[in-house]
Amino acid sequence: MAKPVQIGIIGAGRIGKVHARALSQLPMARIEIIADVVDGAAKKLADEFNVARAGTDYREILQDKNIDGVFICSSTDTHAKLIEEAAKAGKNIFCEKPIALDLDKIDMALKAVADAKVILMVGFNRRYDAGNIRLRQALLAGEVGTPEICCISSRDPAPPPMEYVKISGGLFLDMMIHDFDLARFLLNDEPVELLACGACLVDKRIGKLGDYDTAMVTIRFRKGALCHIDNSRRAVYGYDQRAELFGSKGMISTSHIHNDNTVFAGVDGFRRPPIQNFFLERYLQAYQAEGGVFVDCVRKRKAPPAGGRDGRAAVVMGYAALKSAKEGRWVKMAEIK
Amino acid sequence: MAKPVQIGIIGAGRIGKVHARALSQLPMARIEIIADVVDGAAKKLADEFNVARAGTDYREILQDKNIDGVFICSSTDTHAKLIEEAAKAGKNIFCEKPIALDLDKIDMALKAVADAKVILMVGFNRRYDAGNIRLRQALLAGEVGTPEICCISSRDPAPPPMEYVKISGGLFLDMMIHDFDLARFLLNDEPVELLACGACLVDKRIGKLGDYDTAMVTIRFRKGALCHIDNSRRAVYGYDQRAELFGSKGMISTSHIHNDNTVFAGVDGFRRPPIQNFFLERYLQAYQAEGGVFVDCVRKRKAPPAGGRDGRAAVVMGYAALKSAKEGRWVKMAEIK
Amino acid sequence: MAKPVQIGIIGAGRIGKVHARALSQLPMARIEIIADVVDGAAKKLADEFNVARAGTDYREILQDKNIDGVFICSSTDTHAKLIEEAAKAGKNIFCEKPIALDLDKIDMALKAVADAKVILMVGFNRRYDAGNIRLRQALLAGEVGTPEICCISSRDPAPPPMEYVKISGGLFLDMMIHDFDLARFLLNDEPVELLACGACLVDKRIGKLGDYDTAMVTIRFRKGALCHIDNSRRAVYGYDQRAELFGSKGMISTSHIHNDNTVFAGVDGFRRPPIQNFFLERYLQAYQAEGGVFVDCVRKRKAPPAGGRDGRAAVVMGYAALKSAKEGRWVKMAEIK
Amino acid sequence: MAKPVQIGIIGAGRIGKVHARALSQLPMARIEIIADVVDGAAKKLADEFNVARAGTDYREILQDKNIDGVFICSSTDTHAKLIEEAAKAGKNIFCEKPIALDLDKIDMALKAVADAKVILMVGFNRRYDAGNIRLRQALLAGEVGTPEICCISSRDPAPPPMEYVKISGGLFLDMMIHDFDLARFLLNDEPVELLACGACLVDKRIGKLGDYDTAMVTIRFRKGALCHIDNSRRAVYGYDQRAELFGSKGMISTSHIHNDNTVFAGVDGFRRPPIQNFFLERYLQAYQAEGGVFVDCVRKRKAPPAGGRDGRAAVVMGYAALKSAKEGRWVKMAEIK
Repeated sequence: MAKPVQIGIIGAGRIGKVHARALSQLPMARIEIIADVVDGAAKKLADEFNVARAGTDYREILQDKNIDGVFICSSTDTHAKLIEEAAKAGKNIFCEKPIALDLDKIDMALKAVADAKVILMVGFNRRYDAGNIRLRQALLAGEVGTPEICCISSRDPAPPPMEYVKISGGLFLDMMIHDFDLARFLLNDEPVELLACGACLVDKRIGKLGDYDTAMVTIRFRKGALCHIDNSRRAVYGYDQRAELFGSKGMISTSHIHNDNTVFAGVDGFRRPPIQNFFLERYLQAYQAEGGVFVDCVRKRKAPPAGGRDGRAAVVMGYAALKSAKEGRWVKMAEIK
Repeated sequence: MAKPVQIGIIGAGRIGKVHARALSQLPMARIEIIADVVDGAAKKLADEFNVARAGTDYREILQDKNIDGVFICSSTDTHAKLIEEAAKAGKNIFCEKPIALDLDKIDMALKAVADAKVILMVGFNRRYDAGNIRLRQALLAGEVGTPEICCISSRDPAPPPMEYVKISGGLFLDMMIHDFDLARFLLNDEPVELLACGACLVDKRIGKLGDYDTAMVTIRFRKGALCHIDNSRRAVYGYDQRAELFGSKGMISTSHIHNDNTVFAGVDGFRRPPIQNFFLERYLQAYQAEGGVFVDCVRKRKAPPAGGRDGRAAVVMGYAALKSAKEGRWVKMAEIK
Repeated sequence: MAKPVQIGIIGAGRIGKVHARALSQLPMARIEIIADVVDGAAKKLADEFNVARAGTDYREILQDKNIDGVFICSSTDTHAKLIEEAAKAGKNIFCEKPIALDLDKIDMALKAVADAKVILMVGFNRRYDAGNIRLRQALLAGEVGTPEICCISSRDPAPPPMEYVKISGGLFLDMMIHDFDLARFLLNDEPVELLACGACLVDKRIGKLGDYDTAMVTIRFRKGALCHIDNSRRAVYGYDQRAELFGSKGMISTSHIHNDNTVFAGVDGFRRPPIQNFFLERYLQAYQAEGGVFVDCVRKRKAPPAGGRDGRAAVVMGYAALKSAKEGRWVKMAEIK
Repeated sequence: MAKPVQIGIIGAGRIGKVHARALSQLPMARIEIIADVVDGAAKKLADEFNVARAGTDYREILQDKNIDGVFICSSTDTHAKLIEEAAKAGKNIFCEKPIALDLDKIDMALKAVADAKVILMVGFNRRYDAGNIRLRQALLAGEVGTPEICCISSRDPAPPPMEYVKISGGLFLDMMIHDFDLARFLLNDEPVELLACGACLVDKRIGKLGDYDTAMVTIRFRKGALCHIDNSRRAVYGYDQRAELFGSKGMISTSHIHNDNTVFAGVDGFRRPPIQNFFLERYLQAYQAEGGVFVDCVRKRKAPPAGGRDGRAAVVMGYAALKSAKEGRWVKMAEIK
């Protein structure tokens, strides 16, 4: 049997745990070491998944010659720098989104990756969801014909803590960035211009921070398709994730995934259970698939489905949306530099 | 334009009204007269649908030379006699199910129909439901292949009044008779033997009358298919009407028809509204189609989809089920005479 | 029994026939007379629904003292003038949408109605659809809480003939006008500003006529809700009509209505039949309900659910959308005069 | 952290692999050793899941003092003997269904378990399916009221090889045994008598072996509920697994689980993808849950949800069904000894 890809994880928080779990189930991957600045955090995660080594210094990972790939799961402000260092150390890189909130930093990180000729895969987990994959395949296979309309609804079950909102980069860069990437993925096309409209309807404290909790964006893509995205920070019925592709030959859409497959019929009507509550549950299988794709790309030296260019493009769209919402006008991607 | 079929209705009760409404909407039908033994009942219904004549004596209808067809919507015990008289008067006949609860009476009625060479259509309304028609078409078109399993669930929203239960003929002849006919219709086949199992789980008074309120029947058909029917007199969620045909090439089934096409998503899950409450709502369109089929058969001298033989067959199955439930054994159709 | 409302219909074309059928099934309505400028058209329709009188001159209707209400089902360019004349004749009025494509003409018509103190109901048929009614009720009853997002998709099965496109007023005034009214109805609120985006993706001839065949609109309502509408002139899978209301307490949406309630399971997956093809089928029951509401309003001297003010508001939104699409900017309702 | 439960697996075939995978993902379980009579089979499976030891002699497992629990995943004819030996060795036992096809052997095995006071859990995987668990909870919580009707449909995608059919024990003991257990689980009640009806409609070779490929069973339970089960060896649309509980307060049912959550709308209608093809996919999560339940029972010395009595009861129902189908009559459980 071939040798498993040896991996180091930087960051043992919520998303680091998601990837540790996914990687621990892959026969072709082996987590060698976990690092986290918080004392004891890496050790705890390492114990849970039978990982031998743990520490507080990520450089231990980068300096280890046996490590093939690094998972960057630390806070957003560290991503770009870690990508640069990992690239210089010759490591293949999986980095959680966003690469950075600063385009210059992104460009420097991408340059380091290009120079080092390593693989960079950005964590747009929705690209590995079975439903979204099926939509894209339907497009590529011509089943929907020429795409004309794309609608994406993405709504969180509840707003994040205000502390998080402050440093998040705002709804467009923190939350809708996933939908921007999804739109590019589903339409297999590039955005030309967009019009964003934000509101604060859920929690006034979000508005006081200058952010939005509800938003709609219209995007015009190069090949002509129009795309609608709506976001809300609070859907009381759960984590609402839907997409629809409409074209000259048909429409294909994803529907809700409920907690189980039952229906109860009583005097008040028919009830299905709530939908999966948040991204860890909803995209559990997507995260698992994502880890496998990274490992596969490393082993076969393949370009990942979502690379540095995709990571940058979504941030550009986020800034365009922010500008559009603030200035109340259409903004072209070319304006964002 | 061709002359409309001129119709007399005998019986101005609930089901008479259903047919009056359906016929009044058909360009090729005209209700000329309504009769009901209850003083004033026919007049009231006639007024509602702009029918010129009304009375208490059905013979006025049979003696009217302009009448092409008679709708027998009176109580079950009068059906056979009215069929005989109407046939002798040369009228085409639509008769509500069952023709009679006595096979000898049925046979005499059918003989009168055959002698007079008039059309007799029996009111198995489910044969005109769009979903059931589609199931049968899927069978006839070979889409399901050779049928192997047929499952029918039929459950009323609430038990009828005890006064009705007493004279109803019992669950198998009053309620499941529709499912027996539907099974023959969907499988396009004849039953060989059946096994019935009855219980009184809903209302003890029904059991004291010697009747059942819950029942399951297994039927073996000539070409080999097995058929399951279950009935309940009380489904708190509404009038549950479902059928499923399973065969060598696929399965086709009917699903619930809800009161409207909405879904509400709240903290407790997703809710669809209740299903249509009872047969008048659920089969409204089927009743309308049924009237049209009768008129069409009369105009074109065609055999109706459900004729005297079908009316008799369902009663035979009802008696077989009753015998099977009482004796706890398989009963062949050939035993019922 | 109370005397039925006596009605005259002006216009015996497709939509005139829809209303004739609906009215002929209402016990409390009686169509007395039909008029159509095309020789013989009124007579043909009158015969189909047993209407005694028919002619080519609508003035015969307006001069008939027995007529309580007039249905204006003629071509759009005649609506405003007919409303004025009917109002002056003291008739209650049902008028198909739009009242006119000229706001001055609309205002003159509305003034005539106000002066004559007659009822004017505008034919926004979707307000009488069971699903849409349920959505609005859910809003009014507080089930969805404060509305935050409203999404409406409305797609025709195929583009209309080019001859029709030329005189239609364009997609925003001909097609999306229904969705503009629906948005006001569902949100129970007034639009402040909107951003429209049109494209020609379906048929280049539509673009050459200066019209769009695909469009998206974002609307900001007074109470804060954001509304998305998308339209396409060509959905190969049928007449797609969906709406969704999302708020602080939940979401309620309408779903597809298929041709029947069957599901076929075969080797290639599970199939449901197409959805109802176009508005005559999809809104058949809504049209029937609409007629009943008009009759009820006339009898009880009630204000109709969709009156002159609603008819005007939808036209204003249509012009705002046209302006927005042409000028590529947000347009406020107050700009349209 | 507590010490994980140390497990040995006997049998490295298809179902052994399922359990190895499930156990390898449980933090509180550790597979220590795998044994399989086929040379190399255990080694291959051990390598896949990083298990240190592998061999061909199961006695190595039973003699290892560190082993807490044994998974018996070998062929059916070895189950009873292995249970006896494992019990005598003081090991807790998970055994795949059926315990044996011989009631005497079952009773001897159960006696050994009772004498040794070890835990025996029988592999009725459907008890750990989220949908089925929800149905049982709805019953226990009183949501469905008194249960009156239970319907179970269970259909395989394709018949097994004839070699397997020969030694399988027949449809009732090999396939429907799962449904018998499910009926007891869902109704939380014991069967009194049943009526079985078998047919050979799918593959004549099955009939020549004296077996059935299509069957229906009606069961009467102690508290009065009627239960219907249908089985087919060939559903071309996939592995059809549905259950429905109907009672005095409502109905709850499980529905199909499709391969993904997409719907495609084209000119021919709306398509959902096929359902999960067979038990390994459909019950993947149930198998994982099952392993966790066993580990939990061992750690907490709890009785498992499906123990020896349940394993025996399902076999008794299987023999009753076989007898009923052969003799064409109701058979009471008490007749099977």
